[in-house]
Amino acid sequence: MSTLITNIGELTTNAEPGRLTDAALVLADGHVAWVGAAAAAPAADEVFDAAGRAVLPGWVDSHTHLVFAGDRTAEFEARMSGQPYRAGGIAVTVNATRAASDDELAATIRRHVAEAVAQGTTYVETKTGYGLTVEDEVRSARIAALHADEATFLGAHLVPPGADADEYVSLVCGEMLDAVAPHVRWADVFCEKGAFDADQSRAVLEAAAARGLGLRVHGNQLGEGPGVRLAVELGAASVDHCTYLSSADVDALAGSGTVATLLPACDLSTRQSLPPARALLDAGATVALASNCNPGSSYTTSMAYCVTTAVLQMRMSVQEAVFAATRGGAIALGRADVGHLAVGARADVHVLDAPSTTHLAYRPGVPLTHAVWRRGERVR
Amino acid sequence: MSTLITNIGELTTNAEPGRLTDAALVLADGHVAWVGAAAAAPAADEVFDAAGRAVLPGWVDSHTHLVFAGDRTAEFEARMSGQPYRAGGIAVTVNATRAASDDELAATIRRHVAEAVAQGTTYVETKTGYGLTVEDEVRSARIAALHADEATFLGAHLVPPGADADEYVSLVCGEMLDAVAPHVRWADVFCEKGAFDADQSRAVLEAAAARGLGLRVHGNQLGEGPGVRLAVELGAASVDHCTYLSSADVDALAGSGTVATLLPACDLSTRQSLPPARALLDAGATVALASNCNPGSSYTTSMAYCVTTAVLQMRMSVQEAVFAATRGGAIALGRADVGHLAVGARADVHVLDAPSTTHLAYRPGVPLTHAVWRRGERVR
Ligand SMILES: [Zn+2]
Ligand SMILES: [Zn+2]
Repeated sequence: MSTLITNIGELTTNAEPGRLTDAALVLADGHVAWVGAAAAAPAADEVFDAAGRAVLPGWVDSHTHLVFAGDRTAEFEARMSGQPYRAGGIAVTVNATRAASDDELAATIRRHVAEAVAQGTTYVETKTGYGLTVEDEVRSARIAALHADEATFLGAHLVPPGADADEYVSLVCGEMLDAVAPHVRWADVFCEKGAFDADQSRAVLEAAAARGLGLRVHGNQLGEGPGVRLAVELGAASVDHCTYLSSADVDALAGSGTVATLLPACDLSTRQSLPPARALLDAGATVALASNCNPGSSYTTSMAYCVTTAVLQMRMSVQEAVFAATRGGAIALGRADVGHLAVGARADVHVLDAPSTTHLAYRPGVPLTHAVWRRGERVR
Repeated sequence: MSTLITNIGELTTNAEPGRLTDAALVLADGHVAWVGAAAAAPAADEVFDAAGRAVLPGWVDSHTHLVFAGDRTAEFEARMSGQPYRAGGIAVTVNATRAASDDELAATIRRHVAEAVAQGTTYVETKTGYGLTVEDEVRSARIAALHADEATFLGAHLVPPGADADEYVSLVCGEMLDAVAPHVRWADVFCEKGAFDADQSRAVLEAAAARGLGLRVHGNQLGEGPGVRLAVELGAASVDHCTYLSSADVDALAGSGTVATLLPACDLSTRQSLPPARALLDAGATVALASNCNPGSSYTTSMAYCVTTAVLQMRMSVQEAVFAATRGGAIALGRADVGHLAVGARADVHVLDAPSTTHLAYRPGVPLTHAVWRRGERVR
């Protein structure tokens, strides 16, 4: 079964610089089989006429927390009437998540992934971190791996209320890691005041690396701190948030293979500053954009909102922002097969109801997703 | 024909403070016929089960420029790579609008109004201002009145390239106003450096008032200036933009019947500051939110984006922002019958795919429009 997408007004492949005009794509067996000029396109089993619309790779959302239960609307409202964001609110979600059935958790993640896909997201990472017991973290990892494209162990999300921090870190690095590791590709730690300090974070990351897991770090969200330095030193694939960076942090990222993953919807939803995207890009760092979808600090699945914000408010160009939300996320997840549309890539395709990706920033808030293929299957 | 909308999880009527729970609405003959507790609702010809969703009045978009032709995507991209916004870009749209056929202009406004309605907008004001000759302004006014709910004469949008400013103002105040007035309820002037100064603006507004038109002003967009003072002095219904206000401007608005209409999507799309909403509200001014949809400085129909931005970045509460984007816009247009859902109001109803209007800010960028009635007719 092959599909020809033709009459593409503007095609972003991320495999070559710039945007092609009058282009076509052939999808076959879940992969991109051909890319080129519309006039030269081969035949296919079915034809989709893009009618001049813009086509780009599906969004790669490399940072979400979708294994959760419970409602934090009231906490959000309180924050909007002036109370600051506190990481401790995570405990509310932990209690609800532990109390939920497997079916409830699965229904919630499925609903949010479907919502994301309907907006052009075709590859989703998600994390544990609302279980915080061996049993609950294993369950979360199992559900994450089943319903998302990539699963990350975030036992070190928060010290559970009432627990001793160092004892909890020992549990995370030992029995919990042993039990969760078979279900996930990645381990992550929330390295921040109020969560885990540099030594505790290092212990978690080194234990995870020793188990063969790839590393990710939540760092520099609420202020400057050791997160970025640690991520770069340990060769993490990504350090996420990066809202507050010293110039040494920017230089360290630029000189490393660690992606700086920016989460602007989170920064705005917690009424913080936006991250220094321009400084990172100008220094030569690789930047990704992700939603950080979670019920506490960033309850959105909209990658388009992240791109719009990056262009209008973080001085990224449209092409930089689109790259960061597709190929950037893929690099942050160590995936060569998604986030671009070269021949052989996964057939994850996003057709906009607009002639240009520029409209993602030019038309803020207007829902622009026209059609989506995921692994070659039309899902919208 | 009557419709019962029942099982409303949260109902915002704007007729009473706060939000009702477990509510129902009956629409009949294009108006709200009944509001109350779901358990006490009367029978109706058809029933819509809101299934716990939030219901609010349709958005009132009190400021758009939808009679236009031509493309300014390239100018937007240039601005995003560092060039400042210049009002002179308007001339590009003027040339394209003059060259377009009536049918082309009508198709464009219909397409944008339909796009807005699909996102919950049920009442739209639009302006002339890309014609700038007697003939082209009359044509624009006729098309505006035909396809929008309110039409505004904005002959004083820009001095046409090559024209003498004072001669052009005389034309606007004389022959052009005479020809356009039968088609519109409102007159507006762009009172700003690079457009019309205080004396020229006053001349236009006084001539329009003498013809019985209501007054609106574009003011204080690019810097502090006389726009707000003039609007308040002449009893304009609204002064729009208000990005740069002195404390005297804030006090003048608070002590007046002139609405401060804020256009945050425009401020972000031109990479300017956001307006001092908190100062206006705290002083007691009436605030409206509108899209300013136009191809140059704010090419969005998304009132939800304006509300989200107002809450996350302008320190408005959710209830203040929702009021400003519904009833606030109605007050700015002098309409008692829209922007609220008391018995007798126009049956303009917006059902969200969320249990609370809070989600408009809690879930930035996620398209939340579930169903829309306009004048009692289901349009989405
Ligand atoms: Zn996170
Ligand atoms: Zn305007």
